[in-house]
Amino acid sequence: MDTTLRDGEQTPGVALNAEEKLWIARKLDEIGVSVIEAGSAITSEGEREAIKAVASEGLDAEICSYCRIMEQDVDYALECDVDSIHLVAPVSDLHINVKLKKDRETVRQMSMDTIQYAKDHGLIVEFSGEDASRADRDFLRSLYIDGVDAGADRVCYCDTVGLLVPEITREVFSDLSSVLDVPVAVHCHDDFGLAVANTIAALGAGAREAHLTINGIGERAGNTALEEVVMILEWLYNYDTGITSNELYRTSRLVSRLTGLPVSANKSLVGANAFTHEAGIHVHGLLADTSTYEPLEPEILGRERKIVLGKHAGKSSVTLALKELGLDVDNAQLGEILSRVKQLGDHGKHVTDSDLQTIADTVLNIYRESRVKLEDYTIVSGNKVMPTASVRLSVDGKEVIEADIGDGPVDAVLNGVRKAVADFADIQLEEYHVDAITGGTDALVEVLVKLSRDGKVVTSRGARTDIIMATSEAVINGINQLMQN
Amino acid sequence: MDTTLRDGEQTPGVALNAEEKLWIARKLDEIGVSVIEAGSAITSEGEREAIKAVASEGLDAEICSYCRIMEQDVDYALECDVDSIHLVAPVSDLHINVKLKKDRETVRQMSMDTIQYAKDHGLIVEFSGEDASRADRDFLRSLYIDGVDAGADRVCYCDTVGLLVPEITREVFSDLSSVLDVPVAVHCHDDFGLAVANTIAALGAGAREAHLTINGIGERAGNTALEEVVMILEWLYNYDTGITSNELYRTSRLVSRLTGLPVSANKSLVGANAFTHEAGIHVHGLLADTSTYEPLEPEILGRERKIVLGKHAGKSSVTLALKELGLDVDNAQLGEILSRVKQLGDHGKHVTDSDLQTIADTVLNIYRESRVKLEDYTIVSGNKVMPTASVRLSVDGKEVIEADIGDGPVDAVLNGVRKAVADFADIQLEEYHVDAITGGTDALVEVLVKLSRDGKVVTSRGARTDIIMATSEAVINGINQLMQN
Repeated sequence: MDTTLRDGEQTPGVALNAEEKLWIARKLDEIGVSVIEAGSAITSEGEREAIKAVASEGLDAEICSYCRIMEQDVDYALECDVDSIHLVAPVSDLHINVKLKKDRETVRQMSMDTIQYAKDHGLIVEFSGEDASRADRDFLRSLYIDGVDAGADRVCYCDTVGLLVPEITREVFSDLSSVLDVPVAVHCHDDFGLAVANTIAALGAGAREAHLTINGIGERAGNTALEEVVMILEWLYNYDTGITSNELYRTSRLVSRLTGLPVSANKSLVGANAFTHEAGIHVHGLLADTSTYEPLEPEILGRERKIVLGKHAGKSSVTLALKELGLDVDNAQLGEILSRVKQLGDHGKHVTDSDLQTIADTVLNIYRESRVKLEDYTIVSGNKVMPTASVRLSVDGKEVIEADIGDGPVDAVLNGVRKAVADFADIQLEEYHVDAITGGTDALVEVLVKLSRDGKVVTSRGARTDIIMATSEAVINGINQLMQN
Repeated sequence: MDTTLRDGEQTPGVALNAEEKLWIARKLDEIGVSVIEAGSAITSEGEREAIKAVASEGLDAEICSYCRIMEQDVDYALECDVDSIHLVAPVSDLHINVKLKKDRETVRQMSMDTIQYAKDHGLIVEFSGEDASRADRDFLRSLYIDGVDAGADRVCYCDTVGLLVPEITREVFSDLSSVLDVPVAVHCHDDFGLAVANTIAALGAGAREAHLTINGIGERAGNTALEEVVMILEWLYNYDTGITSNELYRTSRLVSRLTGLPVSANKSLVGANAFTHEAGIHVHGLLADTSTYEPLEPEILGRERKIVLGKHAGKSSVTLALKELGLDVDNAQLGEILSRVKQLGDHGKHVTDSDLQTIADTVLNIYRESRVKLEDYTIVSGNKVMPTASVRLSVDGKEVIEADIGDGPVDAVLNGVRKAVADFADIQLEEYHVDAITGGTDALVEVLVKLSRDGKVVTSRGARTDIIMATSEAVINGINQLMQN
């Protein structure tokens, strides 16, 4: 069961509208997810529209709504035409007494009533114990048994605040799967970083379903990452999950984009760095055989390997990068280029293509005059002033003056520069990226641009406290590199 | 052993200078880390300066350098005055043959020679097998035994590409710790998301040392997160690690700031959302007893709980937030405010203090004229033009005109606005945050500012395609809220 659209969406600050939920649901269905928990129908009118949209899309997956043990919640789920409900009862005394202000037997009665009500209305019922990992085990077991007697099709054990460890998980799930004759599901949270390990332990001990989210998003520290569980089962336990692994990376990107939640660079499998290599010795090994420093090929997840240079760069990685720039160097030159790359790296800089080109040009004593120089630019903008930029460039020694407007001063400068060089080269902006700025309005802003010309792509950088200056610096560097051959 | 400064720093694009390494090392020492791997002395001149600086700081921790099985590497480590070396030999046939282009017995000989050389020069030696999880187990065991005979003080088993699972980890470490009479260390990578679970499994099976990094940073998917292992041992296994847990959050922030690697919002324990609550029902339970939806109190890590509003908001969370704004409402008003908050939430908006104030004012039919209105602003900037902003505000109906300069046009506008209201209120910018911008230069830019006045802090938002307009919108909203009482 994928719960990206329910527990994942409970991430603070995240809200997906009907169209966005539909995009994600289609993708989940496409990669082979069996059950999609599309939301919690009781939440709001907008949420019900979204669930209804997913339920009426005709997907192969079972579409599910979260419900509390109240008929009203089931009614709302029915209104959305879902196939099933994930019916959640608080089961620890803490949750029963403090949150619900009821007692165990009342919870039992409410659960049975709601299960019967849902079954009477034709729903598949997954009966779930919230905060099960802090519940009395005997009470919990008897509650599940009664739930199955009342008609529940599956049961689920929720480690609501992420307190399980693998040893206890195995114990609990062996017990439950031996006494219950319906599938048992595991629902973990990653508060201590053990959600994936506990989920795998539960599946090893008899659980037949796991609740997962793409990128492990969810409340607090999030839920169990779907992509990790799938790849662990497939690669480390040789178990066929039926999930299309080479769509996992694209699925991760889709969810990140629509939820607005960035995936950290070192996230397993789907993070930007998961298949990026910097250290010199490693790239050396990697070139000989990619498996030396990779547990699996990035293509298996539908993504690509990336080699970057920095202070740990070695001869192999620099040679490879130079080759990509079309440059051949001898051993002495390579040594000198490497030492300059490391020097830049020592200063905390990520060495981009255009940095490397400049270093190589200097070492090879190639005097490449920059074909494009930014002589000056001026911007005027305001809330009642159309963002306008004038730029004066020299291109091959010839002065070019242009002006343009934009969606803001940054956009205006970029438009002006592109217009000014248009007669010389058709430059496309492929990607514009500014790292999150935190601190003051005088913090350093690092701009990375990816520009292309006739299919050739380069990455260049500008770093200034002024975002407009950083942008123009990055763009001019990139254009020069694209106009060099 | 903390290896934030070595394996953590091998994260692509990261480079710490001597001063930055020193800050992190001092903090690691302060929280009680036993061994600090400060870097790899062979890497570069800058790296050696950094390691030397850490080694000569007089910290309690043992200071260690990474070395390959070559005397040259040991010489560089000696030059840095470290206490110990982490001496790494490739041990899988893949690494031995493909990367090193040697055979097992050559690796054995090189290892013994280097161990003896290091011991002769007074170093503590931790002898480590790289890619141990893909090595022949008998060869590996005999290599470790020989290493200990040659003088190694500790051995380490590296799961270099993150292929271990907890069951195999337990097997391996029970075996090694029973045949070796020196401490055995575990070094994991998080390629499949199991680094923490494998590290805990190893410690449970006899390992006496673990290699960890703050925030789990490191190559590819990173290493094992120190904060997670510490808190799992302390809280879930009742084991006293000797680490000062209430400095863990500050340590995480320090490392994130200096490496430039953001911590994802849903990172266990240290992510921005780890103790943030949104969903209505949860906040309800949380108010009754914080343990209902928290595995431990945030203060234990030196951080605070945060409650935010959005589409899942419930009566309890809205009441709490209104109370913080000093507003009392009746039940009908609360219902109406809640439905408007959810509406905003349905559109994917994170509801800030000033959004809530506006909603509450509308519902309570309080007409609060904005004391400050931005009539207009104009900016002029360029590479040869000093960034200058003029602003015309009306404050309490009175026109105020000011102009100021700044580090860029964004900074200039902010300075101008603050100057214009200075006679009415002393407004401080506490935090300025722009989410990473990806897409084009016309992408939506969301600016969040935290402003304060006499200790009262508010958060407000501006979202525009123009970063300057978004900033001024956010600042004016916040100022109005601070000037309301």
